[in-house]
Amino acid sequence: MKATLMFGAGDVRIETVPDPVITAPTDAIVRVVRACICGSDLHPYHSMAASERGRPMGHELIGVVEEVGPDVATLAKGDFVIAPFAYSDNTCVFCREGFHTSCPHGGFYGTREVGGMQAELQRIPQADGSLVKVPGTVDEALYPSLLTLSDVYLTGHHAAHLGRVAPGKTVTVIGDGAVGLSAVLASRQLGAERIILMGRHTSRTDLGIEFGATDVVAERGDEGIAAVMDLTNGEGSHIVLEAVGHMPAYEQAYGIVRPGGTISRVGVPQYEEAPVGFGSLFGKNVTLTGGPAPVRAYLEDAIPLVLDGTIEPGKVFDRTVTIDGVPEGYAAMDAREALKVLVTF
Amino acid sequence: MKATLMFGAGDVRIETVPDPVITAPTDAIVRVVRACICGSDLHPYHSMAASERGRPMGHELIGVVEEVGPDVATLAKGDFVIAPFAYSDNTCVFCREGFHTSCPHGGFYGTREVGGMQAELQRIPQADGSLVKVPGTVDEALYPSLLTLSDVYLTGHHAAHLGRVAPGKTVTVIGDGAVGLSAVLASRQLGAERIILMGRHTSRTDLGIEFGATDVVAERGDEGIAAVMDLTNGEGSHIVLEAVGHMPAYEQAYGIVRPGGTISRVGVPQYEEAPVGFGSLFGKNVTLTGGPAPVRAYLEDAIPLVLDGTIEPGKVFDRTVTIDGVPEGYAAMDAREALKVLVTF
Repeated sequence: MKATLMFGAGDVRIETVPDPVITAPTDAIVRVVRACICGSDLHPYHSMAASERGRPMGHELIGVVEEVGPDVATLAKGDFVIAPFAYSDNTCVFCREGFHTSCPHGGFYGTREVGGMQAELQRIPQADGSLVKVPGTVDEALYPSLLTLSDVYLTGHHAAHLGRVAPGKTVTVIGDGAVGLSAVLASRQLGAERIILMGRHTSRTDLGIEFGATDVVAERGDEGIAAVMDLTNGEGSHIVLEAVGHMPAYEQAYGIVRPGGTISRVGVPQYEEAPVGFGSLFGKNVTLTGGPAPVRAYLEDAIPLVLDGTIEPGKVFDRTVTIDGVPEGYAAMDAREALKVLVTF
Repeated sequence: MKATLMFGAGDVRIETVPDPVITAPTDAIVRVVRACICGSDLHPYHSMAASERGRPMGHELIGVVEEVGPDVATLAKGDFVIAPFAYSDNTCVFCREGFHTSCPHGGFYGTREVGGMQAELQRIPQADGSLVKVPGTVDEALYPSLLTLSDVYLTGHHAAHLGRVAPGKTVTVIGDGAVGLSAVLASRQLGAERIILMGRHTSRTDLGIEFGATDVVAERGDEGIAAVMDLTNGEGSHIVLEAVGHMPAYEQAYGIVRPGGTISRVGVPQYEEAPVGFGSLFGKNVTLTGGPAPVRAYLEDAIPLVLDGTIEPGKVFDRTVTIDGVPEGYAAMDAREALKVLVTF
């Protein structure tokens, strides 16, 4: 099959590799119908050391079950499924508590052992727990939005959920990437009264407004903080959803959060240490939350919202490539010419 | 009047100073009935630079209203009151949201301007907002427990409240000081299923058991983490209440918190930067919360629990001194000979 491998920073290639096979009785093989490129794929695209073997890329897919292992009970060949970006058994204590990304039998894609989803076929470990069926005959027009339930939309939802976005609250979203825009849409779904989007790419913030942003702040740093404080009567934002992962975004977050407010992070932190003491979080009783989204916990509730047209998170895709076009998709996202790239087969 | 002043590290003196007077129409003057020494008073006791004028000490009192300013509407001479350790108007937006320690008209005691409560009289700014009356005739036996509602018990409660302690949850309290023991008692009040107390002073952990701790872990560092993981079936604690404020306690907290769990800090952090990235908080979706306790938000609910004997948080006091004995009270707490020192007048 064709698969995407990264051999180093900026070096993405489509290679022909052996088809994946069932290796555990709980595995399934899925034929990929749509995949995509994630903002987090750009981190190794910037920094990966050269590798002779290459690293399989991709962790988002919708597809059709091709084969199931003997212990898979809930799936059959032909089922249309969504695969969350992490696999999990969906039965352990952490899964039952809604934190599937910490499942002791779970893990992440993008390794030589498990493979990556920017490929024609994918082996899914713990298939009963990991895959969620989409009922009925699926309209192809819904593919992009269903694909966002594999990661990006539900990552935005996770930020809003952990931030306890609710009616009456002012939410500020830092970052106008696909996760930030998803966080805007999720905040609107959760009833936020006001949604301030911090971003400076007009084409993206325009989609943010379509998704429900009530205000856009293009400034950054101290100017950005001052602008949000002005918009909130000097009080700050109840909830800040941080969808970037770099230290300036973190600093912006604690600059604009209101006393007693919450910063919820879903941008993977590109730092380990950060200010949390009296002068940043503690003094004003700020809560810091967030982490890798346990997409599986939210999937069953989100699928009907896509199927009935309540939400259309697939609007974040602004470019489509075939599997052979994936390397140019990376380049386009890296150059910010594309917000998010859909992959067809 | 007699008042406590600190002139530098280890240098606490009782001096005769002018009686406080009403300086704003919203002020009240309270005659102090009981005050006490706080663990946080030991920070300057260790590190304060020498000062010729001295710094007034103390921020916890119960007392009787002596005089009120012309704009004070809800209080009269003779009222028995509790003063939260921070003053606040109790009407602004942050007070209404339950974060009185961020009131823009509020502030903290222990300055030359406002004075300190280890003294015979105290001026209370924003008296209508700051003071809470205790109804009826107050039994002297209840004084110690009522005094803990000024700070220490409700600081422990704040930790448990922000940590969302609830039935079915496992809570670990780091620190066997008066705040840690209060956090144990508050966690029991909130219905925690299991309360693990980390501390190594048997006389204190014994009181912790009386307050509701189900397990005591005396080990620290990696051994302490291993012990808590053993007690929790390798899963970790849903909620960790950190009542120390030093970095080893923070590291212990993220070592024992469960995926998706919460660390709630009320020990004033003696650090500004700390680990919050993938390897500490983010990777396992840990929430970090806490800050200065908005005691005023919890007072009205707590007073009846003391008056009817449901809780007896005053058991944290294990030594009593008169105002003249305050310096030796500091020395006894610093030497860990006393857990918490009550001051009579």
